[in-house]
Amino acid sequence: MTHTEAFLKDLAIIMMVAGFITLVFHRFKQPVVLGYILAGIIIGPHTPPFPLISDRDTIQTLADLGVVFLLFSLGLEFNVSKLKKVGGTALIAGTAEISLMLWAGYSLGRAFGWSEMDAIFLGAMVSISSTTIIVKALDELKLKRERFAQFIFGVLIVEDILAIAMIVLLSGLALTGEVSVSSVANTLGRLSIFLVVALLLGLLLVPRLLSVVARYQSKEMLLVSVLGLCFGFCLLVVELGYSMALGAFVMGAIIAESKEIHVIERLVEPLRDMFTAIFFVAIGMLVDPSVLVEYWLPILVITAVVVLGKTTANTLATIATGHDARTSLKVGMGLSQIGEFSFIIASLGVTLGVTSGFLYPVVVSVSVLTTILTPYLIKNSDFAASTLRNLVPNSLQGSLTAYENWLGSIGSSAQENQVSAFIRRILLHVVLNFCVIAALFLAGAALVAHSDITQWMALLPPDWHSTVFWAALLIIAMPFMVATYRKLEALAMILTELGVGVATTPSRVALHRLFARALPTASLVAMLLLISALSSIILPPLHLFVAVLVLVLMLALALWPRVVRWHSQLQVALRETIAQQADDPK
Amino acid sequence: MTHTEAFLKDLAIIMMVAGFITLVFHRFKQPVVLGYILAGIIIGPHTPPFPLISDRDTIQTLADLGVVFLLFSLGLEFNVSKLKKVGGTALIAGTAEISLMLWAGYSLGRAFGWSEMDAIFLGAMVSISSTTIIVKALDELKLKRERFAQFIFGVLIVEDILAIAMIVLLSGLALTGEVSVSSVANTLGRLSIFLVVALLLGLLLVPRLLSVVARYQSKEMLLVSVLGLCFGFCLLVVELGYSMALGAFVMGAIIAESKEIHVIERLVEPLRDMFTAIFFVAIGMLVDPSVLVEYWLPILVITAVVVLGKTTANTLATIATGHDARTSLKVGMGLSQIGEFSFIIASLGVTLGVTSGFLYPVVVSVSVLTTILTPYLIKNSDFAASTLRNLVPNSLQGSLTAYENWLGSIGSSAQENQVSAFIRRILLHVVLNFCVIAALFLAGAALVAHSDITQWMALLPPDWHSTVFWAALLIIAMPFMVATYRKLEALAMILTELGVGVATTPSRVALHRLFARALPTASLVAMLLLISALSSIILPPLHLFVAVLVLVLMLALALWPRVVRWHSQLQVALRETIAQQADDPK
Repeated sequence: MTHTEAFLKDLAIIMMVAGFITLVFHRFKQPVVLGYILAGIIIGPHTPPFPLISDRDTIQTLADLGVVFLLFSLGLEFNVSKLKKVGGTALIAGTAEISLMLWAGYSLGRAFGWSEMDAIFLGAMVSISSTTIIVKALDELKLKRERFAQFIFGVLIVEDILAIAMIVLLSGLALTGEVSVSSVANTLGRLSIFLVVALLLGLLLVPRLLSVVARYQSKEMLLVSVLGLCFGFCLLVVELGYSMALGAFVMGAIIAESKEIHVIERLVEPLRDMFTAIFFVAIGMLVDPSVLVEYWLPILVITAVVVLGKTTANTLATIATGHDARTSLKVGMGLSQIGEFSFIIASLGVTLGVTSGFLYPVVVSVSVLTTILTPYLIKNSDFAASTLRNLVPNSLQGSLTAYENWLGSIGSSAQENQVSAFIRRILLHVVLNFCVIAALFLAGAALVAHSDITQWMALLPPDWHSTVFWAALLIIAMPFMVATYRKLEALAMILTELGVGVATTPSRVALHRLFARALPTASLVAMLLLISALSSIILPPLHLFVAVLVLVLMLALALWPRVVRWHSQLQVALRETIAQQADDPK
Repeated sequence: MTHTEAFLKDLAIIMMVAGFITLVFHRFKQPVVLGYILAGIIIGPHTPPFPLISDRDTIQTLADLGVVFLLFSLGLEFNVSKLKKVGGTALIAGTAEISLMLWAGYSLGRAFGWSEMDAIFLGAMVSISSTTIIVKALDELKLKRERFAQFIFGVLIVEDILAIAMIVLLSGLALTGEVSVSSVANTLGRLSIFLVVALLLGLLLVPRLLSVVARYQSKEMLLVSVLGLCFGFCLLVVELGYSMALGAFVMGAIIAESKEIHVIERLVEPLRDMFTAIFFVAIGMLVDPSVLVEYWLPILVITAVVVLGKTTANTLATIATGHDARTSLKVGMGLSQIGEFSFIIASLGVTLGVTSGFLYPVVVSVSVLTTILTPYLIKNSDFAASTLRNLVPNSLQGSLTAYENWLGSIGSSAQENQVSAFIRRILLHVVLNFCVIAALFLAGAALVAHSDITQWMALLPPDWHSTVFWAALLIIAMPFMVATYRKLEALAMILTELGVGVATTPSRVALHRLFARALPTASLVAMLLLISALSSIILPPLHLFVAVLVLVLMLALALWPRVVRWHSQLQVALRETIAQQADDPK
């Protein structure tokens, strides 16, 4: 049997067993995902009669591709306007849930006497709810359009983003073996800068590229381009030391802003379905039923903690953000399961070789149990709410209502809102521009460290090498620094007006103007210092440093109007991309 | 870098390079396929700067999967009613073209001094035109709805079927190393029996299964089921010693008769596009440009032979089937290129290790050249037709018109047509039933030879083992034998009426009745003898043989009406499947 025939046999067995079992599962109204996992257990090497799969490496590779497609699809369904609509409440609920469950999972793992790393991974695995399972369950119960379902989706978006950040952190943690605040801050800082720049560049370029491709009216070319972008970006992200999952999700979110998103979603769907089927089957294949027998107690305890912990955390967080108790309980019960992200994190632990062998099957079993419970929990949440209402004393109910009313009264002053929205927008722009500048200098430093770019300047004296390079970076960064300065100037104006009232006397006007200059200048100096720190290895000697600074400053002043115009064109282009998508009725 | 990351890198490079080059190619109105091949040459190991692909085995496996999807899609687009509409004329043209080109390619190969096997493979490679290229070219020229285009599609369907038969024959030929009439007949005979039974069983079961799956309204489950069927059937076909390509095409043709075909086509399309892109890129990767420099003369000669030979053969064959010269020339020029089947056959030669290394790049180059020429040939066929008309003497033109008119007059007698259609249908039924019976006994013999099924009958005396088994087969085959008998009886009736006129005297009536019994009985005996030959290894000793025959005969007479009813129900079910699809507007 040739390599291809063996591979075809594996694929045939996976698809046939998965197809048959999902049919049976669907008949008994169980999610398809459970069918895949059971198919995997049957096919896998731990169950009789014999291992049905001959080429496990290739199947595992395709399963990894399943993760890429799964997260790419999640990214495609995600977009900026959706995130805005979900707003801060979902952010609060999602963060609260994840923090509580991380702590609960970790403590539980330690209580079982497991190793530090196993306990940390357990915490991460039980913290993220499963989008796949919830969407399917709500779909089957025909509750997708309900208000509580919309809020659940919001929390899920937040969780997905935090999950991706968690994967990045866990990889770093597993490699260094320790958690230090500074290394976490460093990792997250670099990650955010990378993400901001990738999103800005991606949103500027990718939708434009795809609408050029779409003009040819060839689905095939569109698909190949989309796959090229997705795989290519994953590759870049892997080269930078992050996970493929992150790359796939971010590229999906970027492509989600293109006009062709609906066609692309339909094209990617079959690929996602095929490869995620392989992914879930491969998960089942890793499960050794004998481990389940041995670890039945931890499995049941973890399941109970997941269901109770997630229900409690989400219900309380949802109440805290101003929803009524009934809705909050529905949200809490809907979110009380774990799924694909737990598997991804479990695979990560196995791949990195830092977790024990039993963790994987244990987590898969917990996921199976909680998945089976999900539809029943959602269906019975009304009943649970009524029962709870009878148990809770009236006084508490009264304070809950008062809390809701108080929350509703906040932020009703329209004028105040407008000003604060304006300030928020300015701060957002400042942060975005700063990320671009930081990324430029970080990339520059990396380029000098890892390539022989300075050799091209062999004619110049050695001192000048980094000087020229650094000056070039500074000139490229100029538009963004000018923009930051202008934004901060505007902010300073607003703040002085708000803080000290409208200027009436000439001396006060002068004072205002001074402050309006001082804030941006001070920030620019601070920024420059930070940049110098970031790009320390390419920093020129002091005299040249000063010379370059003065030169670039003069250049900036000379080109000021042109630089401002160029930057605002960039900004308009970016805003158009996002606005187009938002106008498009979904 | 892990295995998955290396694989992701390969995929990313393939998709990015392919995406970029197809964009450029599309701009210059060249087919996407050429872009893929060029991308493959660039990525491949033979061109500088360095091999960009690290895991060629996995990529090759995915490319083979591309062939499966390519042929599966071809099968999906094919269906019984289409084949009927195309009719005999396309069959004549297709067969004529393939025969001529097989001979031309073989002679050419020998003239170049190549080995016997290289020459045979060259003949096979130049004989099949490329559906992919033609469909794309006609699409881009907006000629898809023209009458000549419809005829081209007919010829392509015939060619695709013959190509699949050719792949089977070439595999056999490469393994045994010789061509004998009896082995070809044996191979084709077994193949036809297998195909007939697979189609009958498939048409009975698969569309019913898919409509059960479709009731769940889950695209994911439908896709997994379809993939399970496709891969599973490919696996069965490979186990029986045929190629995956055959299995994919046949399963596609079976699924084409299901009611969900349009949904399925849309689901399979992205998978096909992704994997065929990999397939064509992998083809390019095998091309060593230095071989092209060395073999420039054969490449140009073969290109000329393909264009001229195919144009001539198809034009003449189309004229012979009663089309006017202008249409025929368009058909001929449209079909004058080679493509995906040539690559599949070339890969076959490489995999089996029977062809020389240079053959692959030579054939790819010929395909590239003829593909580039195709749109120009189609566009200029009108001009060529006018030029030819001026060159051809008037007398020949007159006889052509006379020939067309003569052909048009044939078969206009309505009654004669009805009777011959009736006879044809009876013969078809007899052949189908016979195939089922033959397959039953062949499968039975194979089962006894390759398994220990007779051990289950250890309690019986040894003589009885095969007797019981054979009797069981005979009983299972009974409905089909009864049906054959009844069909042949009806045929004999019609033939006697036609041959000797309506019976008027009692003695003539008796004679007719005798003949009406004799024909089916004689055929049944002949069939029994052939069956005995096919299942010789499980044939019981003579006395038991006779006893079994008598018993089964008595059983047949006793159950006659019930058996007839059961068989006709089966027939109705099968006809419904095909009719449903034909009613469905496409």
